[in-house]
Amino acid sequence: MYSIGVDIGAMSIKIGLVDEYGKILYKSSFKTNKNPKKAIDSIAYQIKDLLKDNNTSIQDIKGIGIGCPGAVNSKTGVIDFLPNLDWENIEIVKMLKEYFDTDIKISNDANVATLGEVVYGSAKNLNSAIMFTLGTGVGGGIVIDKKLFEGEQSRGAELGHTTLVLDGEQCSCGRKGCVECYASATALIKQTKNAMEQNKSSKMWDLVGGDINNVDGKTAFESAKQGDKTANEVVDKYVYYLGESILNMLNIFRPEAFIIGGGISNEGDFLINKLISHCEKQNYGYKDAPKTQILRATLGNDAGIIGASVLVR
Amino acid sequence: MYSIGVDIGAMSIKIGLVDEYGKILYKSSFKTNKNPKKAIDSIAYQIKDLLKDNNTSIQDIKGIGIGCPGAVNSKTGVIDFLPNLDWENIEIVKMLKEYFDTDIKISNDANVATLGEVVYGSAKNLNSAIMFTLGTGVGGGIVIDKKLFEGEQSRGAELGHTTLVLDGEQCSCGRKGCVECYASATALIKQTKNAMEQNKSSKMWDLVGGDINNVDGKTAFESAKQGDKTANEVVDKYVYYLGESILNMLNIFRPEAFIIGGGISNEGDFLINKLISHCEKQNYGYKDAPKTQILRATLGNDAGIIGASVLVR
Repeated sequence: MYSIGVDIGAMSIKIGLVDEYGKILYKSSFKTNKNPKKAIDSIAYQIKDLLKDNNTSIQDIKGIGIGCPGAVNSKTGVIDFLPNLDWENIEIVKMLKEYFDTDIKISNDANVATLGEVVYGSAKNLNSAIMFTLGTGVGGGIVIDKKLFEGEQSRGAELGHTTLVLDGEQCSCGRKGCVECYASATALIKQTKNAMEQNKSSKMWDLVGGDINNVDGKTAFESAKQGDKTANEVVDKYVYYLGESILNMLNIFRPEAFIIGGGISNEGDFLINKLISHCEKQNYGYKDAPKTQILRATLGNDAGIIGASVLVR
Repeated sequence: MYSIGVDIGAMSIKIGLVDEYGKILYKSSFKTNKNPKKAIDSIAYQIKDLLKDNNTSIQDIKGIGIGCPGAVNSKTGVIDFLPNLDWENIEIVKMLKEYFDTDIKISNDANVATLGEVVYGSAKNLNSAIMFTLGTGVGGGIVIDKKLFEGEQSRGAELGHTTLVLDGEQCSCGRKGCVECYASATALIKQTKNAMEQNKSSKMWDLVGGDINNVDGKTAFESAKQGDKTANEVVDKYVYYLGESILNMLNIFRPEAFIIGGGISNEGDFLINKLISHCEKQNYGYKDAPKTQILRATLGNDAGIIGASVLVR
């Protein structure tokens, strides 16, 4: 039986019809309307179109699962707040129920991505996994016994907002020295720029055409692979930050797998192998600790749709 | 129906007969034999005595629950290693089964203490709680939906071995800058001594009779209550370390309650109120986050016996 997955982003909303094997049979994407009522109306119309185009009806699907950034209460079905769109207290499940008489569930985007990876992706067949999504920020997801763990009012799993450096860099969350300040793509870009400013002979300058504004999350990794010393130093330091953050999670959860997702995960084996090496050197956080698999997320850009569909699976 | 709780410590082993309300009806304590076989034989004899003294038999009790420090695999019933006694691979459940035909379970001591607090103690009637036991080290316990969460091979919940200060003080676990290095009683004693060395006029010197070797986990707290400036600085810094460590756990788990146990918890409301104040100032870790109750463990020295008994409840 099919499910519908909805992936709400600040820029675009993606909708997909997903089968029981986690395959997307049909998907569409449209610009996110900043007005929450209009955005939700659009989601409803797009779902109706999708059902019509596939000669199916709402009675023939298991339900609608939604992934959304920000603070989302999965029990009440309310988006408590979504900073990038200035949405607050949006009763999205209730609003969509007016259109569709089916099971409708919502969770945070990093949560559903983790759930998708455990059910259909990199950690398929495993029971427990922790995930970092490394992008603008560091999102976190916790799956225990194949179920999402979200904490009270779904406000846990903020794994990126745990201390790595006490009294360190100012974080957007209000605290200081969070993992997000050191291990996000944003942080890596900042670290790359700082290193370039101090090393004018680094080949990273050639890669960005001499314009530091062109630096992105790939700059240091690409130059490192080509042997640039400064770039390798940036990557090694970044791996250290990320590796220590992962070890913290291993000591807390001792999961079967730790998954790296988000833009930075595109660095693939080059990054994953360095992280495995870091974890091995540190005994996976503790003497004789079981070796946790360090995996790269495999659902890629479809993680949002597929993961969301699992909520109503 | 009664259960038996066994609390194994490096110095002594405590055994108690616990009723279905978490009340200890009878308890005994004896010195821990460094030889594991002999220690386990002693546990068996003491349990037999306890049953006889109470005119009951092994058939009349629900089972035997054991709490033990170190790395304990609750699934296999094996003490993987207990550093303070140099025990390794001790099949304690199997060995005790040779004496008793009943349900026998084991878990780590901080785990069972947390379980005891949720079922019978400070967090009674709540479903989820995270606990720090602040003693020589910092133990951690995770209870979700009234059940212990231990991770693979029961090697998770090492909450004291998460980074507070990247590349900070050397920790006994092999890593650096762990919570344990800043928030344990051992760390507080070190912090107190350092402050005293730098402030010869502090009243803490009077409290310890001029001998710095008399400093313990209470020294700074007692002098702080009496208004000593240096002692207050030590306490404030310690609360900052501990408070930030707690906020990390709140952002990860967003539990209903966070419990402070171990020797340091004897500081009671003076400490708890400072921790609540720290958490409130920091929005409990995140904007609009639910307020987690910060509680002092109430089972005290009996936490080990009572918590262990819950394993077979």
